[in-house]
Amino acid sequence: MLLAQSTWPEIEAFLTRSKTVIIPIGSNEQHGPTGLLGTDWMCPEIIAHEAQKDADILVGPTFNIGMAQHHLGFPGTISLRPSTFIAAIGDWTRSLAAHGFEKIYFFNGHGGNVATIEAAFSELYAEASFARQPRGYALKLRNWWDLSGINRLAQTQFPVGHGSHATPSEIAVTQWAYPHAIKTADYSPTIAPSGPIREGLDFRARHPDGRMGSDPALATPEKGGELVRAAAAALITEVASFSAEPFLV
Amino acid sequence: MLLAQSTWPEIEAFLTRSKTVIIPIGSNEQHGPTGLLGTDWMCPEIIAHEAQKDADILVGPTFNIGMAQHHLGFPGTISLRPSTFIAAIGDWTRSLAAHGFEKIYFFNGHGGNVATIEAAFSELYAEASFARQPRGYALKLRNWWDLSGINRLAQTQFPVGHGSHATPSEIAVTQWAYPHAIKTADYSPTIAPSGPIREGLDFRARHPDGRMGSDPALATPEKGGELVRAAAAALITEVASFSAEPFLV
Amino acid sequence: MLLAQSTWPEIEAFLTRSKTVIIPIGSNEQHGPTGLLGTDWMCPEIIAHEAQKDADILVGPTFNIGMAQHHLGFPGTISLRPSTFIAAIGDWTRSLAAHGFEKIYFFNGHGGNVATIEAAFSELYAEASFARQPRGYALKLRNWWDLSGINRLAQTQFPVGHGSHATPSEIAVTQWAYPHAIKTADYSPTIAPSGPIREGLDFRARHPDGRMGSDPALATPEKGGELVRAAAAALITEVASFSAEPFLV
Amino acid sequence: MLLAQSTWPEIEAFLTRSKTVIIPIGSNEQHGPTGLLGTDWMCPEIIAHEAQKDADILVGPTFNIGMAQHHLGFPGTISLRPSTFIAAIGDWTRSLAAHGFEKIYFFNGHGGNVATIEAAFSELYAEASFARQPRGYALKLRNWWDLSGINRLAQTQFPVGHGSHATPSEIAVTQWAYPHAIKTADYSPTIAPSGPIREGLDFRARHPDGRMGSDPALATPEKGGELVRAAAAALITEVASFSAEPFLV
Amino acid sequence: MLLAQSTWPEIEAFLTRSKTVIIPIGSNEQHGPTGLLGTDWMCPEIIAHEAQKDADILVGPTFNIGMAQHHLGFPGTISLRPSTFIAAIGDWTRSLAAHGFEKIYFFNGHGGNVATIEAAFSELYAEASFARQPRGYALKLRNWWDLSGINRLAQTQFPVGHGSHATPSEIAVTQWAYPHAIKTADYSPTIAPSGPIREGLDFRARHPDGRMGSDPALATPEKGGELVRAAAAALITEVASFSAEPFLV
Amino acid sequence: MLLAQSTWPEIEAFLTRSKTVIIPIGSNEQHGPTGLLGTDWMCPEIIAHEAQKDADILVGPTFNIGMAQHHLGFPGTISLRPSTFIAAIGDWTRSLAAHGFEKIYFFNGHGGNVATIEAAFSELYAEASFARQPRGYALKLRNWWDLSGINRLAQTQFPVGHGSHATPSEIAVTQWAYPHAIKTADYSPTIAPSGPIREGLDFRARHPDGRMGSDPALATPEKGGELVRAAAAALITEVASFSAEPFLV
Repeated sequence: MLLAQSTWPEIEAFLTRSKTVIIPIGSNEQHGPTGLLGTDWMCPEIIAHEAQKDADILVGPTFNIGMAQHHLGFPGTISLRPSTFIAAIGDWTRSLAAHGFEKIYFFNGHGGNVATIEAAFSELYAEASFARQPRGYALKLRNWWDLSGINRLAQTQFPVGHGSHATPSEIAVTQWAYPHAIKTADYSPTIAPSGPIREGLDFRARHPDGRMGSDPALATPEKGGELVRAAAAALITEVASFSAEPFLV
Repeated sequence: MLLAQSTWPEIEAFLTRSKTVIIPIGSNEQHGPTGLLGTDWMCPEIIAHEAQKDADILVGPTFNIGMAQHHLGFPGTISLRPSTFIAAIGDWTRSLAAHGFEKIYFFNGHGGNVATIEAAFSELYAEASFARQPRGYALKLRNWWDLSGINRLAQTQFPVGHGSHATPSEIAVTQWAYPHAIKTADYSPTIAPSGPIREGLDFRARHPDGRMGSDPALATPEKGGELVRAAAAALITEVASFSAEPFLV
Repeated sequence: MLLAQSTWPEIEAFLTRSKTVIIPIGSNEQHGPTGLLGTDWMCPEIIAHEAQKDADILVGPTFNIGMAQHHLGFPGTISLRPSTFIAAIGDWTRSLAAHGFEKIYFFNGHGGNVATIEAAFSELYAEASFARQPRGYALKLRNWWDLSGINRLAQTQFPVGHGSHATPSEIAVTQWAYPHAIKTADYSPTIAPSGPIREGLDFRARHPDGRMGSDPALATPEKGGELVRAAAAALITEVASFSAEPFLV
Repeated sequence: MLLAQSTWPEIEAFLTRSKTVIIPIGSNEQHGPTGLLGTDWMCPEIIAHEAQKDADILVGPTFNIGMAQHHLGFPGTISLRPSTFIAAIGDWTRSLAAHGFEKIYFFNGHGGNVATIEAAFSELYAEASFARQPRGYALKLRNWWDLSGINRLAQTQFPVGHGSHATPSEIAVTQWAYPHAIKTADYSPTIAPSGPIREGLDFRARHPDGRMGSDPALATPEKGGELVRAAAAALITEVASFSAEPFLV
Repeated sequence: MLLAQSTWPEIEAFLTRSKTVIIPIGSNEQHGPTGLLGTDWMCPEIIAHEAQKDADILVGPTFNIGMAQHHLGFPGTISLRPSTFIAAIGDWTRSLAAHGFEKIYFFNGHGGNVATIEAAFSELYAEASFARQPRGYALKLRNWWDLSGINRLAQTQFPVGHGSHATPSEIAVTQWAYPHAIKTADYSPTIAPSGPIREGLDFRARHPDGRMGSDPALATPEKGGELVRAAAAALITEVASFSAEPFLV
Repeated sequence: MLLAQSTWPEIEAFLTRSKTVIIPIGSNEQHGPTGLLGTDWMCPEIIAHEAQKDADILVGPTFNIGMAQHHLGFPGTISLRPSTFIAAIGDWTRSLAAHGFEKIYFFNGHGGNVATIEAAFSELYAEASFARQPRGYALKLRNWWDLSGINRLAQTQFPVGHGSHATPSEIAVTQWAYPHAIKTADYSPTIAPSGPIREGLDFRARHPDGRMGSDPALATPEKGGELVRAAAAALITEVASFSAEPFLV
């Protein structure tokens, strides 16, 4: 069930069946010479939308801009500062909690978001901790590639050249969903050196075409489809488990 | 051209042709017994995506959560506080300006966003005003229904029962784009009284099913299609004019 | 009754008769070659002070600095950023609500304030909306020229040359109250073009002497007096109506 | 010269003669059973307005709401939080500095403001210190009773019963300026005990009628006039000295 | 009893005996040619640690970075902005209050901290004042040199050359505690002129070696020991008095 | 070299030899029935202070309060909210960068700090990324247990019962440095279940005595000494490598 394509009475009815909502969250940032700028918010959106066809789960609108300051050296990247990102996650969460959602599952597509999302969770929990009160809801962060079985599948599909940014697995997922937007490019075969993550100009100097150790030309829509189906199934299982978890306080 | 479905080299190339980007912006909030929660971000997204098929314009990712605190009494609504909204618009703008965009056009689908978006623009301009410097970019806000000819078309289509929230025109637009998600409901014929906009519980007390003076059952996908085509054409014209406007300082 | 010229026991007594307070709010900004920098906070102050002579209403201190970043290209303008303005309106409101005021009426003299004041109201309401609680007070914004009958009177007084900034009507009001501070200047007869509101340098380039389409030389103290008397009467009526409005939640 | 009663060309001309501006700053808070709520912003305003009749100095609009959280237990008090106060002082200063003012003199009427105003100054200076740059302007805080000779005069006028809040000296100043608003009350002769400054309810418990060790009935308009004349003269002298002070960096 | 060297069950037990905690707070900033950068946080830490050997009092971890923006022209200085400092004091206090501490005593070693610490207290109290509720805890600020008898002892020890920054008394305290870190330098005998506190570059221009009117060579470890013993005793007395103070609301 | 025990001329001289500074950073939080509340800031401080005896490296004051909201259910824990922590790390960094430090190495003792420290780094880098400028300094985070060889040594020392909070390795380090503060307790042999990190009350419900899967009674001062020596050596090596790293932009 897609929240944005539902009416409020439908959500009111859903809340009598479940208190869990899934929020796809990602980033809009460069993904090398052939990857789509939307890759990181598209991937969790694609998987979650697929999953809700097979289970009575609720998928919220996609949080499509995250923390990608290091990619700002490449045109098209849009980033929130961590402080803004924390505030926004806070308001999404406060809104959902106001309706009675008790389990809010952030389904993430961007590694660079992880630290700030965790900080945002702590910011929300801290209000309760200072007040010595139960928070009343639980927050969970899961990267789509960390769902059960997915990293292994990706390694099987792409035993070499997977890398860590503009990976063939994420690009394959977008190819499956947006086949008309498959791009090609003659990029140099040398793999950009890995290195620290700093400001945008430094990142572009280290990774001139945006890739980090990946060979995105390995991606195919078929492999993307395999990943989507496997991830959607794993997502359903994990969300069921999260929903079933009791509150201790 | 859709930014999220483009690569960074494609955006780099676009910037040699134009410095303008369109950001669809809306809200995810209750739209009465039959309207989709995503109506207000879907409408500008639908229109802008349609427009870019006919012109060399660039449409960014959709800013899908806005200021809808007064709708929080209805399940499914998600709102930013104005202070968060201002910060987020600021970071989107700073990101786009970092790439050299000089005309940033916020194409809005939610009346409740207007005040805060204008405040966000002033927050950004104020940095330059305090420093007695040119800002280097121009910001523009346009509601889709205020594009040339659109309000008149909607009044022609819906001479009675248009109202001001969960209107048949916005619902028609979503019906055209999401025909599988057309909803019906037996709602009471009485039109909710108009009134001030205050906190969520007050709003729900005044408008028990969420509508404000509208009869959304008048919407049809065909009328939606008319609106989309007319608005897309008007958008192309207005964006061209905005792009052509010179900087005075 | 003027709050600032009262003692706390007098306010305590007033609260047994009424829970309504009026806050004149404006801006300190350039008003063309002859208008006073304080015009926009003086006008609502003048009208509200006049009104309280004829009715048992309470007028708070004047909030004299608002959102005028676009006027910062002209010496003497003082502006808050929207984020600061929102915080300050919040604290004024929290203070007044702490005393039991339930209807807080912001009586505005500056069009550039409107968006941010509305955003500030939403910021305050959102706290209650997130908590699913009644706010306990109602906020209202009214521009003095939008009081019943005032725009029509101004159009009658100044059928041509009213314009939208440094208007003869607002200048007439200050001439009536500050007759010793009536200024004249040889300004060029051409009316500055209208245009978008952006940063300070852009605004000054578009409006070299600060006026926007107005001919302030048309102002006279007599016309100002007419406006003040009409507005004061309309204010009393509207405040009575606002005070009488019941809470729904 | 009063900034608010001037035009922008008059301020532009003043800046060719002087780069100094005086900002009266105070608080709107309870002042015991007979003192006006506006006492603390009225006093510096009264003195500064008097002073500018005798010297070519520029007096800005009055910053009338300060840090008075401890007085919130008494109706009519309006307070900013320190964080809001710091932001607002920052924006006033940035505005004035944008016009070329280099010496900004905050002329204060409320002891409770002192700590936060100093913190606000440090916040502004810190931007320059982090950047290893000159700030370009100098800020000065002066309480009106600390001007040369004023404390001594007040002690002479009120050798007993001066106290520290709702003092006869400050009330005398307002009596001189607002003779129609002189209030009387039968307050208990016992002087409230001194004590720490904490939250509003604690303060009211310690000081049931709001006075701190003072006998405000000693005030007379005549004594107020003496204070105003002496303070105005001292203000002119001190501002001249501040204006003459060279920048070292 | 040192909180950081205790276990949580030990603190839980302490709370059954006392609700008071002492937080040494200072700054890390230049202290002239011979003073240690840590002088201002070391002094209250040294004294408080000494005091807890003789009384059942609880000393928390040291808050070692304060408001020292004016010293940033000298290498090694670390400063918080006032807004950050206020936020951090707030979180320390909220944490301690969550455990049931009701008297929180900030024992300060840096004059430049005073204004911001007081502002931070007001920020915390204001939350309660806006809500018309008791705060539930009391905050107290004390500079170590203002403890009973200490200023007099320092004046006796250093009748000339005490000055106001990099004073022989504070340096003596650190010499007593860190005898291996006693530094000497040939500094010019002229005493730097006093002056206003502004940005870092201005401060360094006024005080080229960082001292303000002091002759730190007068310091000896023995005099430091005298100061520590006297201050520790006075601290115990004052903390006992603060602990015994009843709440009025 | 310890910054706090140095004078500013000594730091000025150091900067001619190196632009690198090490900041020990940790947390003050419960560490089970026998661990010291200061464990997490003591460990990096102990190791860094030991390391600077053997190499010409500079160790700043210890940042002793971090993000520990989940431990607030246990008395003695003090935590910053992530937003405060980000602001404070920002000001420490801005201060050090103002002096010319170009490599700032945060040497961490608390796993719960990692996400927020990384967010703080991104907040600082983002300023440069938005401005398309080089940042001018590089930031690095290293947990002491992740230094080369340390995790392996700890696993060798404590092959069973190491766990993840109140571990015998961290407690051993504090025992070596604070032998007078070694605590014992009869704690239940059952190992607390692992689980998610949420608000304070939830955490205490899951981990009743504060430990997470550890048997801290295995700690000995001797093993602590081994860890300190090994970590100090590894720290020196890594800091040298970080210092030598060239800037690319």
